[in-house]
Amino acid sequence: MNIEHILKQVEAGRLSAKQAAKAIGKPHVDLGFAKVDTARLHRRGFPEVIFCPGKTTEHIIEIMRALRKAGQNVFATRASAEQWAGIRKAIPKAVYHKAAGAIVVDVVKPSKPVGMVAVVSAGTSDIPVAEEAALTAERMGAKVERVYDVGVAGLHRLMSHVELLRTARAVVVVAGMEGALPSVVGGLIDKPIIAVPTSIGYGTSMRGVAALLAMLNTCVPGISVVNIDNGFGAGVAAAMINRVGEKQEE
Amino acid sequence: MNIEHILKQVEAGRLSAKQAAKAIGKPHVDLGFAKVDTARLHRRGFPEVIFCPGKTTEHIIEIMRALRKAGQNVFATRASAEQWAGIRKAIPKAVYHKAAGAIVVDVVKPSKPVGMVAVVSAGTSDIPVAEEAALTAERMGAKVERVYDVGVAGLHRLMSHVELLRTARAVVVVAGMEGALPSVVGGLIDKPIIAVPTSIGYGTSMRGVAALLAMLNTCVPGISVVNIDNGFGAGVAAAMINRVGEKQEE
Amino acid sequence: MNIEHILKQVEAGRLSAKQAAKAIGKPHVDLGFAKVDTARLHRRGFPEVIFCPGKTTEHIIEIMRALRKAGQNVFATRASAEQWAGIRKAIPKAVYHKAAGAIVVDVVKPSKPVGMVAVVSAGTSDIPVAEEAALTAERMGAKVERVYDVGVAGLHRLMSHVELLRTARAVVVVAGMEGALPSVVGGLIDKPIIAVPTSIGYGTSMRGVAALLAMLNTCVPGISVVNIDNGFGAGVAAAMINRVGEKQEE
Amino acid sequence: MNIEHILKQVEAGRLSAKQAAKAIGKPHVDLGFAKVDTARLHRRGFPEVIFCPGKTTEHIIEIMRALRKAGQNVFATRASAEQWAGIRKAIPKAVYHKAAGAIVVDVVKPSKPVGMVAVVSAGTSDIPVAEEAALTAERMGAKVERVYDVGVAGLHRLMSHVELLRTARAVVVVAGMEGALPSVVGGLIDKPIIAVPTSIGYGTSMRGVAALLAMLNTCVPGISVVNIDNGFGAGVAAAMINRVGEKQEE
Amino acid sequence: MNIEHILKQVEAGRLSAKQAAKAIGKPHVDLGFAKVDTARLHRRGFPEVIFCPGKTTEHIIEIMRALRKAGQNVFATRASAEQWAGIRKAIPKAVYHKAAGAIVVDVVKPSKPVGMVAVVSAGTSDIPVAEEAALTAERMGAKVERVYDVGVAGLHRLMSHVELLRTARAVVVVAGMEGALPSVVGGLIDKPIIAVPTSIGYGTSMRGVAALLAMLNTCVPGISVVNIDNGFGAGVAAAMINRVGEKQEE
Amino acid sequence: MNIEHILKQVEAGRLSAKQAAKAIGKPHVDLGFAKVDTARLHRRGFPEVIFCPGKTTEHIIEIMRALRKAGQNVFATRASAEQWAGIRKAIPKAVYHKAAGAIVVDVVKPSKPVGMVAVVSAGTSDIPVAEEAALTAERMGAKVERVYDVGVAGLHRLMSHVELLRTARAVVVVAGMEGALPSVVGGLIDKPIIAVPTSIGYGTSMRGVAALLAMLNTCVPGISVVNIDNGFGAGVAAAMINRVGEKQEE
Amino acid sequence: MNIEHILKQVEAGRLSAKQAAKAIGKPHVDLGFAKVDTARLHRRGFPEVIFCPGKTTEHIIEIMRALRKAGQNVFATRASAEQWAGIRKAIPKAVYHKAAGAIVVDVVKPSKPVGMVAVVSAGTSDIPVAEEAALTAERMGAKVERVYDVGVAGLHRLMSHVELLRTARAVVVVAGMEGALPSVVGGLIDKPIIAVPTSIGYGTSMRGVAALLAMLNTCVPGISVVNIDNGFGAGVAAAMINRVGEKQEE
Amino acid sequence: MNIEHILKQVEAGRLSAKQAAKAIGKPHVDLGFAKVDTARLHRRGFPEVIFCPGKTTEHIIEIMRALRKAGQNVFATRASAEQWAGIRKAIPKAVYHKAAGAIVVDVVKPSKPVGMVAVVSAGTSDIPVAEEAALTAERMGAKVERVYDVGVAGLHRLMSHVELLRTARAVVVVAGMEGALPSVVGGLIDKPIIAVPTSIGYGTSMRGVAALLAMLNTCVPGISVVNIDNGFGAGVAAAMINRVGEKQEE
Repeated sequence: MNIEHILKQVEAGRLSAKQAAKAIGKPHVDLGFAKVDTARLHRRGFPEVIFCPGKTTEHIIEIMRALRKAGQNVFATRASAEQWAGIRKAIPKAVYHKAAGAIVVDVVKPSKPVGMVAVVSAGTSDIPVAEEAALTAERMGAKVERVYDVGVAGLHRLMSHVELLRTARAVVVVAGMEGALPSVVGGLIDKPIIAVPTSIGYGTSMRGVAALLAMLNTCVPGISVVNIDNGFGAGVAAAMINRVGEKQEE
Repeated sequence: MNIEHILKQVEAGRLSAKQAAKAIGKPHVDLGFAKVDTARLHRRGFPEVIFCPGKTTEHIIEIMRALRKAGQNVFATRASAEQWAGIRKAIPKAVYHKAAGAIVVDVVKPSKPVGMVAVVSAGTSDIPVAEEAALTAERMGAKVERVYDVGVAGLHRLMSHVELLRTARAVVVVAGMEGALPSVVGGLIDKPIIAVPTSIGYGTSMRGVAALLAMLNTCVPGISVVNIDNGFGAGVAAAMINRVGEKQEE
Repeated sequence: MNIEHILKQVEAGRLSAKQAAKAIGKPHVDLGFAKVDTARLHRRGFPEVIFCPGKTTEHIIEIMRALRKAGQNVFATRASAEQWAGIRKAIPKAVYHKAAGAIVVDVVKPSKPVGMVAVVSAGTSDIPVAEEAALTAERMGAKVERVYDVGVAGLHRLMSHVELLRTARAVVVVAGMEGALPSVVGGLIDKPIIAVPTSIGYGTSMRGVAALLAMLNTCVPGISVVNIDNGFGAGVAAAMINRVGEKQEE
Repeated sequence: MNIEHILKQVEAGRLSAKQAAKAIGKPHVDLGFAKVDTARLHRRGFPEVIFCPGKTTEHIIEIMRALRKAGQNVFATRASAEQWAGIRKAIPKAVYHKAAGAIVVDVVKPSKPVGMVAVVSAGTSDIPVAEEAALTAERMGAKVERVYDVGVAGLHRLMSHVELLRTARAVVVVAGMEGALPSVVGGLIDKPIIAVPTSIGYGTSMRGVAALLAMLNTCVPGISVVNIDNGFGAGVAAAMINRVGEKQEE
Repeated sequence: MNIEHILKQVEAGRLSAKQAAKAIGKPHVDLGFAKVDTARLHRRGFPEVIFCPGKTTEHIIEIMRALRKAGQNVFATRASAEQWAGIRKAIPKAVYHKAAGAIVVDVVKPSKPVGMVAVVSAGTSDIPVAEEAALTAERMGAKVERVYDVGVAGLHRLMSHVELLRTARAVVVVAGMEGALPSVVGGLIDKPIIAVPTSIGYGTSMRGVAALLAMLNTCVPGISVVNIDNGFGAGVAAAMINRVGEKQEE
Repeated sequence: MNIEHILKQVEAGRLSAKQAAKAIGKPHVDLGFAKVDTARLHRRGFPEVIFCPGKTTEHIIEIMRALRKAGQNVFATRASAEQWAGIRKAIPKAVYHKAAGAIVVDVVKPSKPVGMVAVVSAGTSDIPVAEEAALTAERMGAKVERVYDVGVAGLHRLMSHVELLRTARAVVVVAGMEGALPSVVGGLIDKPIIAVPTSIGYGTSMRGVAALLAMLNTCVPGISVVNIDNGFGAGVAAAMINRVGEKQEE
Repeated sequence: MNIEHILKQVEAGRLSAKQAAKAIGKPHVDLGFAKVDTARLHRRGFPEVIFCPGKTTEHIIEIMRALRKAGQNVFATRASAEQWAGIRKAIPKAVYHKAAGAIVVDVVKPSKPVGMVAVVSAGTSDIPVAEEAALTAERMGAKVERVYDVGVAGLHRLMSHVELLRTARAVVVVAGMEGALPSVVGGLIDKPIIAVPTSIGYGTSMRGVAALLAMLNTCVPGISVVNIDNGFGAGVAAAMINRVGEKQEE
Repeated sequence: MNIEHILKQVEAGRLSAKQAAKAIGKPHVDLGFAKVDTARLHRRGFPEVIFCPGKTTEHIIEIMRALRKAGQNVFATRASAEQWAGIRKAIPKAVYHKAAGAIVVDVVKPSKPVGMVAVVSAGTSDIPVAEEAALTAERMGAKVERVYDVGVAGLHRLMSHVELLRTARAVVVVAGMEGALPSVVGGLIDKPIIAVPTSIGYGTSMRGVAALLAMLNTCVPGISVVNIDNGFGAGVAAAMINRVGEKQEE
């Protein structure tokens, strides 16, 4: 998409117009059913991630192979047991992270983790979403600290971890039901918080809408929110902030 | 409604069937546009209360007069400035409680307050609803303690009042926005909590729905909820609980 | 959380700062996946209760064991048949209350029930929620009277139990569909009412939202509401009110 | 629309095809901005009624004149004070029914009222909607009995009118807030009930949605519902039922 | 509930107070899990109907037996295949109406059908709901005419039945998706219409909410609406109107 | 429905009134459970299409046979595997289009495709809906070009197909999640766009409502929207526009 | 945006890289508060249109001047009376279309209208939205026929215009309340229909949501929908379809 | 709240228990109607900010004075014209930022801005929210670049600013209507994005809910969202991220 740079190459005669148009127009692998965005690594800082629900196992495997062929690490989220069974057979190097429901295949060795992202969860049932966030942030190069089951019904459980949270560059707070934990954490620290509502609850929880609304209406500024159960998105956001803390030159 | 008692009077010849039917059927004053429920004092423990919005000043005055004629204290909520202007002229003994937006006319001297109800509010803007709750509980015989502006963005403000809350018979917690305060208070004390969502907020607060949902989905059991901005209902509920603490014989 | 008391111990030299910080910070058992709040009994008046949905049988058993080890009675709600099958094998003393879908393991002998809480249900299908409320209140020390299937389509069924309801310290009213029963009961008695909407109904019942809205908008003050199907929360609230009637000294 | 009858006229030579097509196609007066449906009286049993909101006073007057010219009685609902001011000047025979907010101009003398429709309202604030229903039913030939302010908070007020309701051919029940009154009335009588939710209430009443949902989810069969505040529609439905009771021959 | 009549019996010495109280208080059979309202036949004109979803087969059978013992015809709606399998074994005289999903057991011979109710459906998929309405109206003594699959996408299909609809005393119109059929039918006839939205549709049909809203907002007065898929309620309402046409003396 | 033309036939004596009424009233085949609208081909330009969900396989087969008997091509959408299994046995000439989930039986040879409709999809999971649209447009005579998996996360994938889209007569854009693709496509071309939201997503996607709202609120005029997952409707709309480009004479 | 073409110019030396980047990057006039998209005329076929709500009169005037300076015709929708008052003073050539609430300033003489778009409205109150659609289509070169006040309560009013609708290239159907008109029109013709829900109605109309849902759930394929009250968007869509009918060569 | 540190002071005899309890319990100024959280500067990194709506001008002035007395800079958002009129009189040093609707009073000289936050808006009407975000980030020490009116209807306007956005530490993207801009920006850069939905739009925009849902359902990970119109919250979040880029030592 860096059009100006490519245009300069054309002007300098280093690229033909056709090559330039191709460079701008098709930095992806076309599999027919999918156009794998191999340029994403350079544009966004991490490879395209495969969201498994609604895809056939065969399609997931083909996309994984296309990414590997492009020399990019594979990360697939929310894989079902059946999908995993098919993938492990086809790609023996694939590794399953059960708590997070995610699959990874490493082509390039991950770099040493830097900085620190804290992932906090309100209840035991919120752990799968929290693990998705934690694993994602780790895949993107962050050191991660987990603080689980510290909901507001017993505030003292949270209080004993406040010092740890203060040393993080970004904090992911995962909660279902009334979604009050991000506000309480936010009142105690001075770091960016990514709040993740979960679908844990019943009745008027409306599969996470109650928690989402609470988080959007927090009286504590500096908290931003992702979709219900979107541990992956929160992990990416926190890891991006963590990188901001790393790159001084920009 | 105590049918059995009335029937015994009939059987004993102390009441004719016609008198009995009347006793069961019409314990109210018919004003045409309204049937003032003068039996409510005996049935429910406090007189009918006048909800002012949507009523003409003339109608409110007529109902007030009917209640006074029946020897009952008058309590009118959410009176507008115009309504109050008309009422004070017609009923000089009427008293306006500005913070709560309520009008009282005492015919019978209120009894000495008993027990204790605490009314807690999250923010300054929640005070009108909190005051409606407090005044209502006082009108129904409870001693009331107010703890205002102790929202979760600065938990220490709440912490310094926890001991007081522990001595209450019932606690009313009023909050808008993310409505997290009742959960936090509930985690700290062992008394019944009536949570009141307020319409304070904007955007996805949806005029109090976000706070309501948070309160209904609290992870802290023992908290029950009333309608948005319903300080009056919360005050009645808390005062009824306060009375339970008073009446040992039942 | 009684910070002032702990601080006095430090000042008096009976506690070191480290001990004090620990006392404030960790009154819970850390199982890794869960932080069992063993201090809740003292802080809230009853032990942490296990909400089974979304937890593995293994986790439930571990939490049960942690509570028993801490000398606290176990109460687990909404256990599935599979969860119960696993638990009865692991903890032979566990007892299953089928109508309420709850499991109890008694370590300490329950005290003699006091006062009285009435649990009223509108229809036959509302009974599981009503039983959850009734059993919860009983576990928390209340004598409970059940009045089931007295919906508004046949008011006379309710009328013959009004005298009983008048002798309760608190009344739980459980109803689905149009949720009108709490208003009708509330018009007849002078005790605090906890209304529980149920998900019974179809179409615009919207899994209990219609009943919930009706209850929140009741024209009868003194009624407060808990989440849809939340018999447990209503039972706790009613039992707390029941205790207020017991403790005169506070 | 009675196509077969018209076709027979054509076959018999009493109508040309052009006349027939016209008879089928244009039984209305075209005012440019409106096509006044003068055939409605014959097709539906009553003339087109003018819903005033969103129409200019000039347009209302023009439509009124078109109806009068067609020899039909005029009925206009929800007229504002400004609209009424303009109309009374233009059409001196117009009569304003303040409680119902409606205007009538009689060209044909109304027939003697028959049968009986009862209109019941829960609260004083519901009266404008109830009056719209009552006046509409009267305009359509029904005798109407009004029973106002008999909400469920004081059931005895309703009970003393049950015998009257039992003699109605149809009962309109108007209620806001929790909308419980139709269910209670429905449990006591055996006549068709038209329930009208009103926008009276606040917070989760959501301008009448709570009452509407309660009415749709009634546990009492035989109750049907119209739009929020739609007294007019309820009046028409009840009057149509009242007519069914009149016409034996059909 | 006819209190006055019973009281007169007491005054005349024909009933003791205890008997009178009992007469008022318990006109039902108490099965523990259910209070079968055997007085409903006299109060409402038809026996209590059993709504099967959420009830165990055993409970349904017990309620059926209680009704039969009281000499009342049994009508059970929305019975599943499993429930029917159990019931047919226990009550060999039971008859299953497959299209309507309903079970009947006749103790008393049904009277000869009178008047006429038309049941109209928009699409083939709406037929189960339409059949529930039709069978219900028949059970309550109405002659029923069925007009199915006449949705607005092909108006001519409806037009050829308009004459039939005009001879009905009440018309039930069943439609899913955009729910436009009641408005179109309503524009053509002058009889009361009960509209039934169905959950047929997908996406923004929101399981019938779209059809419901269309019906509530009809521009054709005289249409009232029941809950989504509530064929039973519509059948009762139509049958009640049909009776109004029968009973001249009232 | 061309009433005037039929009437002229009657006037000219070429049709009896009875024949005319029949011609107007019944241009359909009555199967009892369904009234197959065989006139739709002439009135709307394509035969009635069978929507399979909620229909029994037997009913689908009967409708297919009725259409074939009337000499019309069969098109059935959203057929399940079971339905297809039954249909292929009964109608061996039936052909199943797996990607679109549709069945066709050709009686008349389809005409040569004309013009061009482009079908664009945002993600791989949106393909079934996109294929339903594409196949539908093809069945209705349009040449179709497919451009799949060009979502906004990698805009360059779309950019390389913009020239193709500019040559279409109508463009169908299919997207789930945030539904942003139609706005982006719409900003680049000058042709009518039919946007189709899909139910792909989770949490606040609310089964497609988020995408639908985005599309309805597009800042790019000229985009219109169909129901969630309604590939069929979008295909019909696009094919109709495509025909407008074909027919010069109108 | 035609990148390939511009790149060829660079390769051919006819453009420098800087010029090319500028050509791609800034085809707009930057006013600071707004970037007027003067390239839209060429890219989309009509100039940027000014949506007046929320803009100051000064800003509107500046944008109008920028468009005129660029030689483009000005079209501004939903101008308030105040905005119009300011604009007419600043730009004397501006013309106000009252019924549509729109302002036009013609710099270039509009071309002769071609083809035909029909605009149909259900009720008198829907006319402002219908007029916005009609004027927009006219501005974009279409001949427009208006058919107003033909709602489903009196179908015969619509029937007499069916032949006209059949000769349109596209039909815009505007309706509020139950939004049934597009389905009825769609069942009668074979042309693309753009349905526009309006906010006309009350109660459960929810400011047009009921009409919108009805339109999205139409059982008649080939109907697509725009936002509530979005006459402008419907006019653009219809005009674009009208153009498809004009341009044979594409 | 740094309990451990305070406890150590007690152990060392430098603080009495009473002093310690006070230190923990009351780091705020109690004004009766408000408890100004003067400790927030140290705990959260910036002083308490005054949200003006719903507060009286008198109360705002008192809170401003309390903050100034505590030596803290004052920042008040969403001040109305009336509030500003009162404040400027009482506090002559106050400065009003009109575009953002905010008031500042500087007690301490602000530090030199560091890093860079970009604030992007989709349309002209979104500017007030964007300005609130920009001013907030500036108040919290960030250098801010503004890129306004670059909505997706004309993508080239955005494209020419992509390089600037890539040099930001955090990007705030403000958009109403379909809320597509954050996804498009997110697809092009690798920095954390805070998306702010605005209430700009009409009909199904539902005062910003459509934009909010689009943003929560973005297919681009790393985007998080704040409440509708919450420019302040987005500014705080972006400024906190900006600080993370500054502080290397943590």
